[in-house]
Amino acid sequence: MKQYAAMSREELLEERENLTSLYKGFEEAGLSLNMARGKPSPSQLSLATDMLKVLDGDEIKSVSGDDVRNYGIVDGIKEAKVLMAEMMECDPENIIVCGNASLNIMYDMIARSYAFGVMGSTPWCRLEKVKFLCPVPGYDRHFLVTQDFGIEMINIPMTPDGPDMDMVEQYVNNDPAVKGIWCVPKYSNPQGVVYSDETVKRFAALKPAAEDFRIFWDNAYCVHHLYEEPEKQRKIPDILKECAAAGKPDMVYEFGSTSKVTFAGAGISAVATSAANIAEIKKHLTVQTIGFDKVNQLRHVKFLKDRAGIDEHMMKHAALLRPKFEMVEKELNEEIVSRGIGTFLHVDGGYFICFNSLKGCAKDIVARCKAAGVTLTGAGAPFPYGKDPDDSVIRIAPSYPEINELKKALDVFVVCVKLSSIEKLLETK
Amino acid sequence: MKQYAAMSREELLEERENLTSLYKGFEEAGLSLNMARGKPSPSQLSLATDMLKVLDGDEIKSVSGDDVRNYGIVDGIKEAKVLMAEMMECDPENIIVCGNASLNIMYDMIARSYAFGVMGSTPWCRLEKVKFLCPVPGYDRHFLVTQDFGIEMINIPMTPDGPDMDMVEQYVNNDPAVKGIWCVPKYSNPQGVVYSDETVKRFAALKPAAEDFRIFWDNAYCVHHLYEEPEKQRKIPDILKECAAAGKPDMVYEFGSTSKVTFAGAGISAVATSAANIAEIKKHLTVQTIGFDKVNQLRHVKFLKDRAGIDEHMMKHAALLRPKFEMVEKELNEEIVSRGIGTFLHVDGGYFICFNSLKGCAKDIVARCKAAGVTLTGAGAPFPYGKDPDDSVIRIAPSYPEINELKKALDVFVVCVKLSSIEKLLETK
Repeated sequence: MKQYAAMSREELLEERENLTSLYKGFEEAGLSLNMARGKPSPSQLSLATDMLKVLDGDEIKSVSGDDVRNYGIVDGIKEAKVLMAEMMECDPENIIVCGNASLNIMYDMIARSYAFGVMGSTPWCRLEKVKFLCPVPGYDRHFLVTQDFGIEMINIPMTPDGPDMDMVEQYVNNDPAVKGIWCVPKYSNPQGVVYSDETVKRFAALKPAAEDFRIFWDNAYCVHHLYEEPEKQRKIPDILKECAAAGKPDMVYEFGSTSKVTFAGAGISAVATSAANIAEIKKHLTVQTIGFDKVNQLRHVKFLKDRAGIDEHMMKHAALLRPKFEMVEKELNEEIVSRGIGTFLHVDGGYFICFNSLKGCAKDIVARCKAAGVTLTGAGAPFPYGKDPDDSVIRIAPSYPEINELKKALDVFVVCVKLSSIEKLLETK
Repeated sequence: MKQYAAMSREELLEERENLTSLYKGFEEAGLSLNMARGKPSPSQLSLATDMLKVLDGDEIKSVSGDDVRNYGIVDGIKEAKVLMAEMMECDPENIIVCGNASLNIMYDMIARSYAFGVMGSTPWCRLEKVKFLCPVPGYDRHFLVTQDFGIEMINIPMTPDGPDMDMVEQYVNNDPAVKGIWCVPKYSNPQGVVYSDETVKRFAALKPAAEDFRIFWDNAYCVHHLYEEPEKQRKIPDILKECAAAGKPDMVYEFGSTSKVTFAGAGISAVATSAANIAEIKKHLTVQTIGFDKVNQLRHVKFLKDRAGIDEHMMKHAALLRPKFEMVEKELNEEIVSRGIGTFLHVDGGYFICFNSLKGCAKDIVARCKAAGVTLTGAGAPFPYGKDPDDSVIRIAPSYPEINELKKALDVFVVCVKLSSIEKLLETK
């Protein structure tokens, strides 16, 4: 396949003419397609339909004997702790099971640090400056939380092994204003990067200048593999154990949820952390609520049962998601990468494929898609303050549309990438 | 019945001797009874068993067409707004439906005001002093929230018509540090007081010195009547409408939940307030969460259906609760009030009976009960900082125990009140 950069001006103009007529066809077709939403498809949600019927009203007690329908048990029922610990690969005593959204836990962790400080440290609201490190591209909703609290966000480039750890160490170990870092360690949002063992160990070996520095370890996709083959089911070291072994047991909060296991809007979530952090969290949590929804916690335990049950269930998701991801990767490879006008990392799990266009093209591609009826996540969204310095990152979410719709959307996307790339290349030909 | 205060020292000593032998009997019986918890009984919770089965997996769409299992709709599905509006007697457009606990909404409202201010006002964390008015006796969890944020709490005495409004007006209209007041306007916790129409209207007519003053109107017991007779089902004016009519539409946040309608740990909750406040709340709420549990919202709508369904369901609760409340009131009247050693207000709804002992006896009574195996809410709990200035208020929660257990607990309580009162009276005889 001929690289666009190697084409003459005339060849590019001819290619543009062909593509423009294709694009007009899309416009005339009046499409309404969406690759923006990192949401499970209805078919995926229906995999958990039986969970709605698993409680029949007679089994309403936790193993502790407590009635799950009533008030109390602020940190979650025991069997839900066990289930979430198995999923997040840590110990049940390190777990607090919460409500339907791990994002809400993360927000609350920041909000509590802001109002009350962390284990006796100065509340962040009393400090001149609080900074967070933000590996980029990353999850827009993480960045919105820190932005809401006026926390200064610092971009940390991602590598195929995780965040640039030289830079992380430089900031964390020297700047006492750096209070945290957002991490999605497995199948990262949006690149699908799995942190290497060395990256995880370097995190645990951090020597923060700030006593109240915490790693916000959002293990959102811990069991979200796309492949059945064990060697493709990527593993990472347990950050809690690594931090404890490094003598910093309190340095990390890990988050997880069943949002993309059972129901995206009605799952259960958990934070896993040291005993001391758990005690600190519970001090304020018992003021904030009498308890989370334990009926839904029990519903999850009865339905998923244990780690084996989760793994089995996740393979049903994988069977629905894999063809979509493979189709996107194939088409991107054949149409875009082959022409030297874009790149992406192959992913083994998670919910996204992160496309890198030529510099300065991302916003234009998203706008062209939009005009042809295909909605993408806004360019810039995976960066703090919505600012992509290279204007080149586009997050593709293949999960929600049916595969034929996804194919149509991708056809439009490919044409838009090509058109945008040609315009960019023509600037210098 | 002879009043204790009218007895001679000898008579009191003889009475004490008789009571002491009764008390020893209780001690030897090894009781383990509890009148502390404002929790529904298992029988009450079982009234909602069918709610667990009401979703069969095929009906998973909101009237809006949105899949309730998926992400989104941060302010709640439309039909849940309608249901909660019918329950709280306001308009659906004034409603945000949230998670399983209205306490959590109240906490978040304070937390947001603390971090971000209220509609552009100075964040409370940047102020020297923030004060809240606390009608007493009141709900201990309200006071714990304000205490957690270092807010100074000021006691406002309750009257049979609601808080002492002269005092409320004095504080609110003159002190710009007074940012809020906690109210439980119907069947108040713990006295069961129903605010009079005049009280509600005087609330709406407040002219706060602080632009960010808000009434925290916890309408926790809005449909929690103990009697079927319409004239005993107490009504209060709609505070939202009253405030709007008074030109202060933004002055009130109203809270409600189904915690004591369906499941105490797995209900749904809502905040009702002005359009401007709703917009302000959603600004941060969309950062905090992608949405609350809409499956549970739909479950509630399918089960309760509408206001008529709620009313019918609440009468089933009333049938279970009424005999307990009436038994407590009868025994207190016959054994305690008749002897002039305690008072209480008759209640038509809610979850508590508030007992007033002779001054200086409450802690002692609670301790005596405890030693005989009967747990009561800690004396002082219904007051800010746990300090009852008169040491006379004891909150009795008749809902949870079965009636024969409740009777036993009350027998102990009565003897303890008598013994404690005699000791107090003997001090001056």
